[in-house]
Amino acid sequence: MFNRLEEPTPHAEEVSRLLGFEGLAAWWTNNTQGESNKVGGVIQFHFSVDGKEIGFFDMKVLELHPAKRVLWQVVDGPKEWIGTKISWELKQEGDYSIVLFKHQDWKEPVEFMHHCSTKWAIYLMSLKSLVETGKGSPNPNDTNISGIWD
Amino acid sequence: MFNRLEEPTPHAEEVSRLLGFEGLAAWWTNNTQGESNKVGGVIQFHFSVDGKEIGFFDMKVLELHPAKRVLWQVVDGPKEWIGTKISWELKQEGDYSIVLFKHQDWKEPVEFMHHCSTKWAIYLMSLKSLVETGKGSPNPNDTNISGIWD
Repeated sequence: MFNRLEEPTPHAEEVSRLLGFEGLAAWWTNNTQGESNKVGGVIQFHFSVDGKEIGFFDMKVLELHPAKRVLWQVVDGPKEWIGTKISWELKQEGDYSIVLFKHQDWKEPVEFMHHCSTKWAIYLMSLKSLVETGKGSPNPNDTNISGIWD
Repeated sequence: MFNRLEEPTPHAEEVSRLLGFEGLAAWWTNNTQGESNKVGGVIQFHFSVDGKEIGFFDMKVLELHPAKRVLWQVVDGPKEWIGTKISWELKQEGDYSIVLFKHQDWKEPVEFMHHCSTKWAIYLMSLKSLVETGKGSPNPNDTNISGIWD
């Protein structure tokens, strides 16, 4: 599962800050806790709809190279996610910050993976909006793509 | 590259109609031509920004099973796309029509593939909006995710 996003800013550091340090609650889910700013730290993400929790996952920080690369591994959450890795690669191309995103090591290309692929794009657009306008759409204000899984 | 979309409608036929028959111009690109309703037909898709064409691709219909499965192969367009296949699988789950989308057989996981993955989600959301509200956001009214490739 792969995505690429271009941000019209020459400041990969700014995008990086939003990826693992202070910004996750502002574009992904406003219920983000834990330690994102050190290798070995665990970040907890909880998601809700209409005030009811619908899911969570915990990610362990495996690599942390601000403005270059961040790698997380899912240590708890949906069974299909446990053990998968999420990588963020950041780089500059002229006036743009490029974000290369991967959610790797799914055991099987299950339908839930298809769903997550679409949903990741939604959250990346939230990140893009946060960078460009100062306002993201984190859960529970995220775009609902489904009546089944979220 | 995979996506899953759930439509709150028990009418997969309706979603199917939008996939290869009459609806492409209403959710993907309003410059859609060619023959989408027979195996062997070639569909031509052109995309523009600010009145200038930015890209095109031609897809040959390999399989056509309305409300079940549609398979296209890219026969012209960006070099990374030529030879790749796009499949749509449709099914019912209770009150929902499920769309399983794949863009398969990329030779390499190039950055353009990451980009396309995000953009596919944008177009699938346009399809979803078309089904649910009667109005999609086809090119040139699609959401711009990049300053580089579109």
